[in-house]
Amino acid sequence: MPVSVFQSAPKGAPARTADVYRAAAALMVEKGFGGTSIGDIAQAVGMTKAGLYHHISGKQDMLYQIMKHAVDALERIVCTPVRLIDDPEERLRQLMRLHIQALIGHGLAFATIWSEVNHLVPAHREEIRGRVGEHLELIRETLRELSENGRLRSLDVNIATMHIVNAITGVSRWKFQDFASEEEHLIQETVAYTMAALLKPAP
Amino acid sequence: MPVSVFQSAPKGAPARTADVYRAAAALMVEKGFGGTSIGDIAQAVGMTKAGLYHHISGKQDMLYQIMKHAVDALERIVCTPVRLIDDPEERLRQLMRLHIQALIGHGLAFATIWSEVNHLVPAHREEIRGRVGEHLELIRETLRELSENGRLRSLDVNIATMHIVNAITGVSRWKFQDFASEEEHLIQETVAYTMAALLKPAP
Repeated sequence: MPVSVFQSAPKGAPARTADVYRAAAALMVEKGFGGTSIGDIAQAVGMTKAGLYHHISGKQDMLYQIMKHAVDALERIVCTPVRLIDDPEERLRQLMRLHIQALIGHGLAFATIWSEVNHLVPAHREEIRGRVGEHLELIRETLRELSENGRLRSLDVNIATMHIVNAITGVSRWKFQDFASEEEHLIQETVAYTMAALLKPAP
Repeated sequence: MPVSVFQSAPKGAPARTADVYRAAAALMVEKGFGGTSIGDIAQAVGMTKAGLYHHISGKQDMLYQIMKHAVDALERIVCTPVRLIDDPEERLRQLMRLHIQALIGHGLAFATIWSEVNHLVPAHREEIRGRVGEHLELIRETLRELSENGRLRSLDVNIATMHIVNAITGVSRWKFQDFASEEEHLIQETVAYTMAALLKPAP
């Protein structure tokens, strides 16, 4: 587990780093990066501005810390466990399931804040893009493995990868908005829909 | 074609109503509804604030006009022509193609501004939701027809409908972001991917 940069936060502040990043991310998603001030963030996470500046150098740094936290969580909760799965079909099923569960359970803002990546300084932008790229590469590699095994339809692996990621983040959004469906049913249907799109029909 | 509410706009203002709504929508998507002022919108569309207030009563009304414009365009460009197609599979293919083309060509902001719908007054919110609901119902009806013809996989029609809409808006976003692919290839792959997800394999 990553060491909390907020572990020395004053009493009354959210105890867990993840909660701080989640609250700040939700605010930036709601108001946009441009519409969010450090004061807004401090209030949302229950800290003083001075307390917050003790840990971050400004709004841009906050966005970077949030995104680093999100890609670390993605690596830890989704990518690392599924790399251990030998069968590429099962690996992809679990990748989708774990990612949807993580987003629904405690971090949809981490998916939707992605659109703010251009507000980072170039070096941080490249770093975060590279980390997200590793996640995309895991999906692409899995599709190529399915292709080598003769199990993949004839399709563009890059476009299919984006459809998979889009379905994962999409389904997590509906769960919060005007779409009433039981989580397990939503996950099962989404995985089945995606597998039907990707795989050759069973002979 | 709808009559332009901006046809009496002062000289130098954008000539076409669609351009006004598009510019205003893009701004609200970028800065969020809360972060956008009437002054920002007036500047973006090349009008004075007074000129703008001649046509709309405020920011909330502007959002409503944009959304009404977007659902009118969706009805005119996508839904009306595809309702004339008898075969449900071909209807769905054309629905996806026309909608992706329309969003890429001149209106991605109209898809992404959807998340601001809660800023409308309740009556307008219900009206816009109802109009979008008609579009979703066209897709659901088409899936039910495919099911009655024995061509649809065993799947949840409501969830599949959301996956279709999510793929349409997703693919339009990539085109503008960091995804390099020729538009026609992107559309063909997306339609083929979706059809494979939906339809029973050919015998």
